[in-house]
Formats: sequence, structure tokens, C-alpha cells
Amino acid sequence: MSQNVLIIGGVALGPKVACRVKRVDPDANVVMMDQGELISYGGCGIPYFVSGDVSSADELRSTSFHMLRDVKFFEDCKGVKVLLNTKATEIDRQKKLVKAKDLKTGEEKEFPYDKLVIATGSIPKKLKVDGSDLSGIYTISGLDKAILIRDDITSGKVEKAVVIGAGAIGLEMAEALADMWGIETCVVEVMDQILPGIISYNMAKMAQHHMEEHGIKFYLSEKVVRFEGKDKVEKVITDKREIETDLVVMAIGVGPNTELAKNAGLELSPFGGIVVNEYMQTSDPDIYAGGDCVCLKNLVTGKPGYFPLGSLANRQGRVIGTNIAGGKEKFEGAVGSFVIKLFDTAVASAGLSVQTAKREGFDVFSAFVAQLDRAHFYPEKNIMFLELVVEKGTGRVLGIQGFGKGKDAVMGRIGAVAGILKYKPHISDISNFELPYSPPFSSAMDILNALGNVAENIMQGRAQMIDQKSFVEWWINRDKKDVLFLDCREVGDAGPYVEKYADVWKNIPQGQLKKRISEVPKDKKIILVCNTGVRSYEAQIILKNHGYKDDIYSLQGGIVSLKEWGLDI
Amino acid sequence: MSQNVLIIGGVALGPKVACRVKRVDPDANVVMMDQGELISYGGCGIPYFVSGDVSSADELRSTSFHMLRDVKFFEDCKGVKVLLNTKATEIDRQKKLVKAKDLKTGEEKEFPYDKLVIATGSIPKKLKVDGSDLSGIYTISGLDKAILIRDDITSGKVEKAVVIGAGAIGLEMAEALADMWGIETCVVEVMDQILPGIISYNMAKMAQHHMEEHGIKFYLSEKVVRFEGKDKVEKVITDKREIETDLVVMAIGVGPNTELAKNAGLELSPFGGIVVNEYMQTSDPDIYAGGDCVCLKNLVTGKPGYFPLGSLANRQGRVIGTNIAGGKEKFEGAVGSFVIKLFDTAVASAGLSVQTAKREGFDVFSAFVAQLDRAHFYPEKNIMFLELVVEKGTGRVLGIQGFGKGKDAVMGRIGAVAGILKYKPHISDISNFELPYSPPFSSAMDILNALGNVAENIMQGRAQMIDQKSFVEWWINRDKKDVLFLDCREVGDAGPYVEKYADVWKNIPQGQLKKRISEVPKDKKIILVCNTGVRSYEAQIILKNHGYKDDIYSLQGGIVSLKEWGLDI
Repeated sequence: MSQNVLIIGGVALGPKVACRVKRVDPDANVVMMDQGELISYGGCGIPYFVSGDVSSADELRSTSFHMLRDVKFFEDCKGVKVLLNTKATEIDRQKKLVKAKDLKTGEEKEFPYDKLVIATGSIPKKLKVDGSDLSGIYTISGLDKAILIRDDITSGKVEKAVVIGAGAIGLEMAEALADMWGIETCVVEVMDQILPGIISYNMAKMAQHHMEEHGIKFYLSEKVVRFEGKDKVEKVITDKREIETDLVVMAIGVGPNTELAKNAGLELSPFGGIVVNEYMQTSDPDIYAGGDCVCLKNLVTGKPGYFPLGSLANRQGRVIGTNIAGGKEKFEGAVGSFVIKLFDTAVASAGLSVQTAKREGFDVFSAFVAQLDRAHFYPEKNIMFLELVVEKGTGRVLGIQGFGKGKDAVMGRIGAVAGILKYKPHISDISNFELPYSPPFSSAMDILNALGNVAENIMQGRAQMIDQKSFVEWWINRDKKDVLFLDCREVGDAGPYVEKYADVWKNIPQGQLKKRISEVPKDKKIILVCNTGVRSYEAQIILKNHGYKDDIYSLQGGIVSLKEWGLDI
Repeated sequence: MSQNVLIIGGVALGPKVACRVKRVDPDANVVMMDQGELISYGGCGIPYFVSGDVSSADELRSTSFHMLRDVKFFEDCKGVKVLLNTKATEIDRQKKLVKAKDLKTGEEKEFPYDKLVIATGSIPKKLKVDGSDLSGIYTISGLDKAILIRDDITSGKVEKAVVIGAGAIGLEMAEALADMWGIETCVVEVMDQILPGIISYNMAKMAQHHMEEHGIKFYLSEKVVRFEGKDKVEKVITDKREIETDLVVMAIGVGPNTELAKNAGLELSPFGGIVVNEYMQTSDPDIYAGGDCVCLKNLVTGKPGYFPLGSLANRQGRVIGTNIAGGKEKFEGAVGSFVIKLFDTAVASAGLSVQTAKREGFDVFSAFVAQLDRAHFYPEKNIMFLELVVEKGTGRVLGIQGFGKGKDAVMGRIGAVAGILKYKPHISDISNFELPYSPPFSSAMDILNALGNVAENIMQGRAQMIDQKSFVEWWINRDKKDVLFLDCREVGDAGPYVEKYADVWKNIPQGQLKKRISEVPKDKKIILVCNTGVRSYEAQIILKNHGYKDDIYSLQGGIVSLKEWGLDI
């Protein structure tokens, strides 16, 4: 007899499960219900719909061959029955049925199941401050909300916008508002950097500067205390200022939507996500769950983690579909991989950042490299910045982050490392990572290999680096004269600095250092700088070999990374 | 006491070893000798120098910060002594010295060593046919030869050129000649496809068509029998035609340059490369070797392999340098990764192709996918083609190849898989590969994941594919009327085909197939086609589920891949 498969939720994971079940077990009766009107859309495309890059909402709902994924499409092409505006209200696990309400008619119905799939997704977090219910304040919870935002914009009502939260969605929305519509946009973030927890402060400053160059304002380390307005939001009040606005996008994160699962007595993790095993079954083996409402094993830490991402939802959906149809497929978990376009640049990450690694109890250091993304003699190329997070002592690689204008090239390096993180790689796996090579694509010693090499040099105590943030602190306090900035570049590059800051800035090109070693004082902290950090590292070795002790540091990422911060010294 | 480190060969691996030794063991006396005048250059950049993309040969010899890596640079910046025009003639392992000849003065000298490094590289193969010594026939063996070719071109003497060999270097050189200099260029290849052994026939046809669109002519399955000319080459005579030419580039492969090692009694592998252990030591532990003159462990097959590639040489060089300086670093081997730019496209591969896998004794099948490289609703995107090589039965992934106009995106996917091949991945590792996702970079179900999914469907017997080559054979013989081409696209796309080929081409959109199933004949072979292969696969499942038997095939990569072949049906 054919089995009844019932799916609650029709955005990402739900449709994937439905279609996969029907392909593997064509006899199954598959019913998918959703409380909304719109199903099976690319939620991650919402910022591009708001920006106008994607011209209509239907494009987010269509297949690559331009068929609208509506109720009829699922019936005809996929053999799946879809119920819109239908809200599941209760799971009766004893009777194996789901009670649901038709939100249009108010009618209540019961749906029996042999296998049930919970694909209820996530709920955006909301600030609980005065005025947060004013109209004009949006969270990004679905395509319907996005359509309202775009209606607001296209009707010409929005000249100023405030985005709250400098995470991925917040930044994508900020770009969408500022870039295509010319809206005066600012971002308010409670932490002291953008993309907190994802990339380091040093890298975040680069991405922030790039966005500032495109007109976005940032108010970091700043807390929203209330919203003000009559009919609609007119002002955002933070602990430091008042910001006039016509629109607020609240993007302070999402949490798993698990009310239904909780009421049914299914096991939840301490932070609230539905617990599933590697076959994506909940604590009730006839009930599967996946996507933004579950917690997954973090393959780096080995602990439960939360990874709300459309791509993971899709892949979990396929695994669930296979298993419901009689298969035995595993979904191991996730290392956490991330990429975002910010105007002309990409920021990407895989695994843990220094911040999250420390939070998870790892003792870590990081290596930072600035290098061209292809052979330096090849005409088209961009500087790329990579940071590797490494466990002290063992040399185990825990994560990687990248930033640069060669967008797909950044994504390529991070994606490559994302793939090996579950194998608990060592630094040497990065040093010898076998990326394909030819000059239009990479360097003979690719930046990824160089990153592993730098990490190894740091771990061996051979390289002693100073990060950009610390450099800036020393630079600000340079009047104390307890530090010498030793520029290892050729005279042409270093000259202007020496002229401007004669008392603290000295130039000895790396190739002359041995001969001129007596010019280097032994009673000061020395910060070695060059363009990207290669020559300053060579210089450091020479100094150490000539008896200079511990107080010698090479600026990671060199002058180019300071320039990327927008720092004009 | 400081050790004497002697390095024979100064192009890629040699300089890397030299610099690394000096960084880790600054006291070492490091001497590097080379028989040529030019050292430490990016040999893989030669085609871009010939094309003019790289304006001067010095650029290939410079650092990223524009310092010429000449003798003085190595002395001053690296502390390495360099001897040019110095040919090592003999290694005396008992006395631990190398005899060498100054090619300018004729003087012979002896150089003692504690550690010796053989970095003698490769020798290009030459056709042994009449006339192959005529002037105007070049191999790509070094920057000096490349300078001669470019001199020939810039002096206006070259209107027509013939490249022999459609491997990577041959194709890069063909592009260099045709693209920038407008030289009428053809490629003669003895095999029936370009990049034989690297990509499949199906993918090779796409790359070939793209090059043909840029004016390159190809003569495949064709053998050069002799060259003719008076003072210089004027004609290439193949077994099928005579080709007039002003220049011939012979690019039929390279072999390890091991004469010195062989004469010294060091162990060579059966095909000639120097045998090294994982520390890159030869059979004499005081002699290291690396780069194009050694054989490495193929990490996919576990057998010795030959990987002449500048990137691998650089990475091996660092390992050798570390070990000479007292470290204990391993170089595991290589999976073989490859990328090449062909005009506006990239071709990349990692691990084994179907052809090489079979040669190595694997029983394999391949999966082929055509899909957009980013979210289909994102404005900028390109079709990408990927092929996965899988061991039958076990589902072990042995290799991957890719082609597309999103060059870095292709490189990204192939690089990602290159990284995991040594872990002996399963299809499910591809299906669930955790590439970072957002719409400007990838699809929620990335093409790489889709590729794994298709491979799984094939292995489970769910998908039955026909490749483009077989499709074309059936298409050519369509007059026999024993096959029906069933087009699963919507009427708008399929209509023109039905009109043109009414007797063999039928259109039933996939969504109507169930209702119109009676229109599908049961007594014919059926080849299902759609745009990329997604709907034809769905249709196949429907047909199978309705009692249609084995003779139903879905065209892999769909109509778009036929178009990429230049096939206008």
C-alpha cells in the first residue's frame, strides 16, 4: 500500500523532500501544507529582489527553465498535492495525524500520515524595545514581507533607511537599499564590528570600509533603545544618537520555529532547535525534520550547532526524501560555510572564526595573508586576504575566512577548505592543498598554500606577527617613541613615509638589511612593514639571526591591508 | 658547522629550496647552479608572454613587488649564491661532490655538498620524423626558447602557425598565437579529441568548439609524418594533408630530465622519473629531488605517477628546504589537478578522467551535469558543465572535470574536489559538499551537489543516461526510425524541432506526460531530451513507473550541451 507522506512547510526543505520522495517512491501520496500563499521560493534571493536585481517575485518562485513553482506545477510536474494558507496546529503522534486550519475559511481538518516532515523554518528575532511594532519596521521573514518592502520603496516613500544588525542579511539588505535605489542607508550594530563571529575584526574593517565607500554609514557598538513615530516609524533612537528614517529593516538573527514540535513532545536541543539523528529523524522515528528548525552536528566542534541556510536545507531535504522512500542516507552535519557579496567584494568563511573558536574552548592563533589571487605577472588580478584559524600546539585547522574583489576566487578558496574541515586537517594540508594551477587562475604558490605556510611559520615561532588592530594602537601612540616602524620596501615606496614621519619611520630595503644591520636599534620595539608581509617576514628572520630578541613584529598583510581599512598613514 | 647545500637547477623548485633553507637555517651555505642564463621564472607564464599579455620576459622573472629575481637579488635578499651557465656533469656520491662545467669558459669545477638537490626539471618530447630539426620548429622548454618565438612573431615573419599536440601547453600556445597576433593557427593532434586523458570526449568537443569559434582549426586523429622546408620549416605533412606554415610549436608532452641522477646510480621509476620518498629524498638520503624530474605517488591510484607542474614543484621545494634545514616535513603525493584558460572559458580537472581511470584498471561510470553556476534568478550567471568519475559498486569518487565561461567558478568546484580526493570520497560527499552559498555565487543546490545527486541516481539504476556522443550517433542514423526523440520541454522550446523532424521528434512537456502517456510508443528506443537533463530525468521516472522498460534514455546535459558542441539540430 502506498504511504502517506505529510510535509509541514513549503519554502525550501519541504518542496525538496516532496519531490525527492515522489521520484524514489512514485506511489507515495505526498501532501505539503504551508500557512502562506507563496511556496518553494529562493528565500536567500530576497535581498536581490528588494534591490531590483531580480525584477519580479515570481522569478524567485520559478525553475531555471522559467516555470512557476505553484500549486499546479507541483501537481502536474511533481505529483505532489499542495495546500496553501493551511496552518498546522497540532501533531497527534498517537493517532499519527496533524490538525490544521484553513486560514481563509477557518475550517479545521485532520491529515493522517505514515511519515511526517517538519519544515517549519526559522523566525526572525525582534528587538523588544518601545515602538518596535510601528509600521515601516520589517523583519526579513519571507517573500511576502519582502514584497511589502519593495512596494514601499517603489512607491517613492523611502529616502532614508536604517538596518539593524550587521550580519549577512543586514548587510545584503543595506546594499540592496543603497545601491539600486539610492536610499541613504545606515547600519546599526551592537558589536564593534560587522559580521561579528564570522570574520575577524581585522577583516571586518576592510569589508566595512568598502561598504562605506559605497555610501553606507555604520554605527557600531551602538544599541537601539527605541523607535519613534506617529503612524509609522520616523526615528531610531540608539544609546548614542537619533536617526531619522522612513524604513527599518531588523536583521538581528533568526531562531528555529519549533512550537509545533515542542507541543508534540519532540526532543529539542537546549537552544531550541529540534534534535535529529543523522538520518534526520526526530525523537519520533516517523517524524523527520530539517532546515532552519533543527540543530545539526557541528563537524568542527562535534557539538550541536545551528545552521539556518537554504543550501543545507535543500541537501537535508534530499536525504529526508530518500529515507522516507526506503533509503538509508546520512546527513553528517555541517562545518558552517558562508559567502556574501558586498558590492564589488566577497566575504566568505568556513568553520570557526577566532572568536567562535575561543567561545568553543579552543586555544587558537590565526594567520593572515594578503596576496594576489592569480600569478602576479598575469594582467587581470586582485589582492585577496585570507585568515586561517589554527589550534595551538596541534596545528589543526578550525576555520578560514576570506575577503577580496576576485569574488569567485575568494569563494573558491573558502569552498575548498570547507570541504576538508570535517577531516580535521592540519596546517600542512593547507600548505600543500592541491588547487589547480595556471597563471590566469592562481599563483604557483597559491595564496591558500601561502596561508598554510605563514601559519606554520607562526606555529614554529619563526614568524612573529602583529595584526592590523594592534598596529593601529601602536601607531596612534607613536609619540611615546618606544617603537620604530621599519619599512622593508624599496626607497621609492618607503620614501614618502620616511619624509612624513622621520622620527618613527625608518627605511632599510630588505636586501640591504644585513649590511645595514647596525642602523637598527636594539632598545626599541620594532614593527617591520612592507607591502604585503613577505619582505617584513624575511627581515624579521635576519634580525633574529643577528641577535635581535623578541620585540620584533612583522605587520600581517602589510601596507595593502591598512589601505583596505581606509587607513591613510 | 654550517652545511653546504648544493642545488642543481634554478627555475622553479631550485629557488624555492634555496630560499626556504636560508630562512630556516640562515647559517647554511646555499649554492644554486643552472646551465642557462635565466633563473627563477614562471615557466607556466610562457604562453602569456608569447601572447603579449605579459609584456616583457622580465615580468616572468620578477617578484610580485617588481624586483628582478636575478643573481644579485638571490645574493642580497636571500643570501643564496647563484652560478649561471653552469652545467652539472657528474655527481660523485662517494666524495659528495658535483662536477660542473662553466659553459662560457669551458672551465670544469668541483662543488662539495652535504646535501644535494636535483631540480633538473623536464625535457619536452620531440617527434622523430624527417625535418624535425628545421629551424622555425620549437618546443616549449624554457624562457629562452619562448623569447625566440616571440622575436619571430614580432618581426612579422609569422602569418601561419601549426601547433602539434592538443594538450594544455599546445592549446595555450594556440590561443596565444591566434588571439593576440591574429596568426592563422591550427592544431594537429593524433588522438580523436583535445586534452586527451584529461577530459572526456563529450567535454572536449565543447572546448574545441569554443576555440574554433575563435578561429583555431583542429586536425584530430591525424599524425604528423614529416616537416618540409628549405632554410626553415614551410610545411607540415600529416597522414591526411599538407599544411603550409611559418612556425611550428611542438607540444607533445614532457619527460623527466634524469640523466644526471641515472648516471649517479639513483633509483628511477620504470617510466624514468627519479624515485623519492615522502620526505623527497632519493635513494641516497643526502640527495633530494623534486619537481618535473621526479615521480610522485598518485594519491588516487596509490601508484607512482608523473605530475610536471610548477605549483607542485614550488610546494615540494618548500618541503625539501624544510627537511634540509633539519625539519621532517612530508609531501604525500598528488591527485593531479589541472586548469587552463581557453579564450573565454576554463577547463579544469582533478584526479582521474574516465579514460585514465579505465587505464588504471578501475571499473567506472561517469555522471554529467549542465547547470547555472549561480542561482538561476541572479542576473549574472553562466552555464557550467561538470563530469564526475565514479567507481562502480563502491561509489568512490575518482575524479572530476569541468568546463564553463564562469572561469573562477569552474576552478572553484574542481579545486574543492581536488582537496578531498585523497580522502577517498564517496558520491555522498559530493552530494553534500558544503560549498558556501548565496545567490551571487551558487545555487541552493549547487551544481557540484547536483552532480553527486545525478551520480547517485545513476548508480541506483534510477537514472539511465545517454551521452552526447551516443546521442549524435543515434541522431545521424535517425532515418532507421527505430528511435524516438521525446522532447520534455514546453511547446515553445520544442515546437521548432517537432516541425523540422516530425517523424522522429515528439513533444510532450514533462508536466503533461502522465496524462498523455498513451502517446509514447513501447516498441522503440526512446531518447528523452530537455534543456539541461532535469525534466528528461523526471520523464524517465514517469515512463519507468508506467511499465516502460529499459530502452529509455535521458540525454545528459540536454540540448544546451549539444549547442555547446556547436551542433545545430
